[in-house]
Amino acid sequence: MRVIITGAGGFVGNGLARYLRANPDALGRPISTLVLADLTQGIMPLGTGVEWRCGDLADPAYLDLLLEEPVDCLFHLASLPGSLAERQPERGWDVNLQAPLVLAERLARQARARGAVPRVVFASSIAVYGSLGSDPVTEAAAPHPAISYGAHKLMVEILLADFTRRGELDARSLRLPGIVARPISESGHGSAFMSLLFHKALAGAPYTCPISREATAWWMSLHTCIANLVHAACMEPVGLAPARSWQLPVLHASVGEIIAALNRRLDGICAAQFRFDPDETTEGLFGRLPPLQTPMANKTGFVADLDADALVENVLGAS
Amino acid sequence: MRVIITGAGGFVGNGLARYLRANPDALGRPISTLVLADLTQGIMPLGTGVEWRCGDLADPAYLDLLLEEPVDCLFHLASLPGSLAERQPERGWDVNLQAPLVLAERLARQARARGAVPRVVFASSIAVYGSLGSDPVTEAAAPHPAISYGAHKLMVEILLADFTRRGELDARSLRLPGIVARPISESGHGSAFMSLLFHKALAGAPYTCPISREATAWWMSLHTCIANLVHAACMEPVGLAPARSWQLPVLHASVGEIIAALNRRLDGICAAQFRFDPDETTEGLFGRLPPLQTPMANKTGFVADLDADALVENVLGAS
Repeated sequence: MRVIITGAGGFVGNGLARYLRANPDALGRPISTLVLADLTQGIMPLGTGVEWRCGDLADPAYLDLLLEEPVDCLFHLASLPGSLAERQPERGWDVNLQAPLVLAERLARQARARGAVPRVVFASSIAVYGSLGSDPVTEAAAPHPAISYGAHKLMVEILLADFTRRGELDARSLRLPGIVARPISESGHGSAFMSLLFHKALAGAPYTCPISREATAWWMSLHTCIANLVHAACMEPVGLAPARSWQLPVLHASVGEIIAALNRRLDGICAAQFRFDPDETTEGLFGRLPPLQTPMANKTGFVADLDADALVENVLGAS
Repeated sequence: MRVIITGAGGFVGNGLARYLRANPDALGRPISTLVLADLTQGIMPLGTGVEWRCGDLADPAYLDLLLEEPVDCLFHLASLPGSLAERQPERGWDVNLQAPLVLAERLARQARARGAVPRVVFASSIAVYGSLGSDPVTEAAAPHPAISYGAHKLMVEILLADFTRRGELDARSLRLPGIVARPISESGHGSAFMSLLFHKALAGAPYTCPISREATAWWMSLHTCIANLVHAACMEPVGLAPARSWQLPVLHASVGEIIAALNRRLDGICAAQFRFDPDETTEGLFGRLPPLQTPMANKTGFVADLDADALVENVLGAS
């Protein structure tokens, strides 16, 4: 099968690409070609059947190039991070809205002509919700995006659900929480502090966290994220909900709990080095997330990191 | 102020254009130019400051033409009807999704450059909901569109809410029910039967209705629809909900109730002429609508036709 990963040079995309390269049967059928799509070629040893196709998703000619051969499975991970998209609305429009819309439409058109229905795994985001209040959140929570990134993700979910209803695509949208630990070099994520905690702890370096110790966030390790993306691509369509969007289970934990777990894992190296200088905007967006209940997603087989210690192990064990 | 109506050749657009031409102060400030946009010029006597600009909204050059002078208020009514869009998905994509997205984006870009925030009144649709079940529906009902037309309307609502949050547009999306009585010539509406009841009753002609006498629908006269569109454009932004989408109040009535009211108004001319041969798809989409409660919209000043007799009077009184 021919598989495309957009955003393959990014943190999640690169992790998924390495996983699929090492496990070419992970999607149920052998991957004959793994196309890695991004603006520039990322750091990854190539192998048989693995190829980079670099270009800008905002360029329709590049989309044609990606789709010039039939696609069996598309992981659409490329996006401009939310905080950056707020500052660069025209680029956000191109990358976060038009690129996935047009890519989905062309893929559906190809599917109509070909008579085969490709699977699409879309990295949506908890940014679709906007403010969630303090009561426990369920999978029925109504989305009210408070940043363009979240509005665009929600719009793409709706489009993919419609193409799925029409029988032209077989989409699965996953609402991802903050994935840790992103490289420090990745910029534009408002939730960057979640990853910086890990990097600073590992380095034994001081860090002033922009949200409070008591702030609660939704966490997921890259390891667990990749497991969920692969699971989403493998699930048989029978019995899947028509809307085809899942809020992934998450680890709901405070910054203090994560630091305590880091401290346990790293023999007390980090806790004394951390200070807290909460920024109201950052805390409001990422630091007041209520408990989350996802029985439907759990039953479908999606998973979360079990607790703060497991999260830390899943992050540091892989680094 | 410069006002644009897209879909000005259609049933609702033409009605709104005539109303604004007759009431040039209806929007609070005098309308200096009323631009009527549609594929072809509709039947309407022109007047000072009223001009047609004809073209295809799928053509970016036409959008530029519409926006070449600053716009103060845009009524975006143009769309490919839902039933037709299901059969012509590529045209539906162009007209119902890309045209309003790109129009909104260019208008927001113009607004950024100009430092003035145009109002946008968007004709959304109850098609955003999909199946509503039988319990009374509230304004918190979650949308799960079951046709592309509804999915596209919902996506445009989300985009307009986001541009409003950013302070670049000042949008108001209204979810319209079936508006009566559309001309028989307008095709592609699955809800065409709602209007045909009126035309056949007026003509004293026989009619076989594709939903049952007991089927319940959501009705609104053109008269009431125009009042709501104008009200939406006039409302001051202070206190409006951030999502900027309103489910309009509707008249919830059975086909039998409407026929009885027509019969009262037309001295018994029609009831004996009507037969019923329910089509399951049509009945499922338009004939099992539950009661609707819209306290938020009512409080904001939106209105419904009061009862079946008022609906009939509002339709026939204007014809």
